Amino acid sequence: MIILGIDPGVATVGFGVLSCERGTLTPVRYGVVTTPAGDRLASRLSRIFHDVTELIETFRPEVISVEELFFNTNITTGIAVAHGRGAVLLAAEEQNVPLAEYTPLQIKQAITGYGRADKKQMMEMVRRLLNLPAVPRPDDAADALAVAICHARYSASLLNRGGSSSCSTI
Amino acid sequence: MIILGIDPGVATVGFGVLSCERGTLTPVRYGVVTTPAGDRLASRLSRIFHDVTELIETFRPEVISVEELFFNTNITTGIAVAHGRGAVLLAAEEQNVPLAEYTPLQIKQAITGYGRADKKQMMEMVRRLLNLPAVPRPDDAADALAVAICHARYSASLLNRGGSSSCSTI
Repeated sequence: MIILGIDPGVATVGFGVLSCERGTLTPVRYGVVTTPAGDRLASRLSRIFHDVTELIETFRPEVISVEELFFNTNITTGIAVAHGRGAVLLAAEEQNVPLAEYTPLQIKQAITGYGRADKKQMMEMVRRLLNLPAVPRPDDAADALAVAICHARYSASLLNRGGSSSCSTI
Repeated sequence: MIILGIDPGVATVGFGVLSCERGTLTPVRYGVVTTPAGDRLASRLSRIFHDVTELIETFRPEVISVEELFFNTNITTGIAVAHGRGAVLLAAEEQNVPLAEYTPLQIKQAITGYGRADKKQMMEMVRRLLNLPAVPRPDDAADALAVAICHARYSASLLNRGGSSSCSTI
């Protein structure tokens, strides 16, 4: 199973393509889509839409895993992120790829076993779970890999309870 | 000049197509795009994207006028609206139609001359400015017409100051 994790935004969209076979997680590609700060919002959304579409066409993920959006802090940033998230969801829908959405709590629990894990702990666990020599950079790419791993783990535990998934024994 | 005003949302997107020639505003078409409440968000965004694209292809507006997003009240609703607004902006960008964005204050001032006008006042002024027998329904369509009228008025006043617009003497 190929999982595409996305960390939505407008300036920077993190992505992580994860292969998940017989319980083994392998990072296939990760990185960020960036959009120029001086560009109009509509033009930046278009860039995100097309680049995510290209990722889908290239890696043919079975599912796109993305964090649910909550605003506790900066509302203005949140508005921008929600615009960018709309472009990501639209790219998924246009390519008929199902979405899996997880709360920040679910992601932290899936990665570290602890819902209040801090950023450093999360990054280190992503590194370990993927057997990488160093924490993936930039942070947005690591966040995208985390939400992809989260889906792999939840779908594996669903399988154990009778659900269907091709990534069963993590 | 044809102006397409959009009142973004997820459940209901208001639209108003306005013709603006030699200072006369004529409503060409107005109404709402609705999406089923039970559908996935990505599917609803896709419906909005395609319906707005169809409006653009049908009426070939020179500009799309849309309200800027501020959250003073319900943040959860705001997140959904921002997703929907992203789909509208993307449709505009993909069709190469420039966007004009106005704050709620600018829209109220353009329509009623008063930045704190209430909803009823706004609706009645939209009716009068467009010479309609009754206030346009539903409200989201009237809101979309209001932001279209707002653009007509601002572009007219820009022309008076040396800008360019084909709707000059409102």
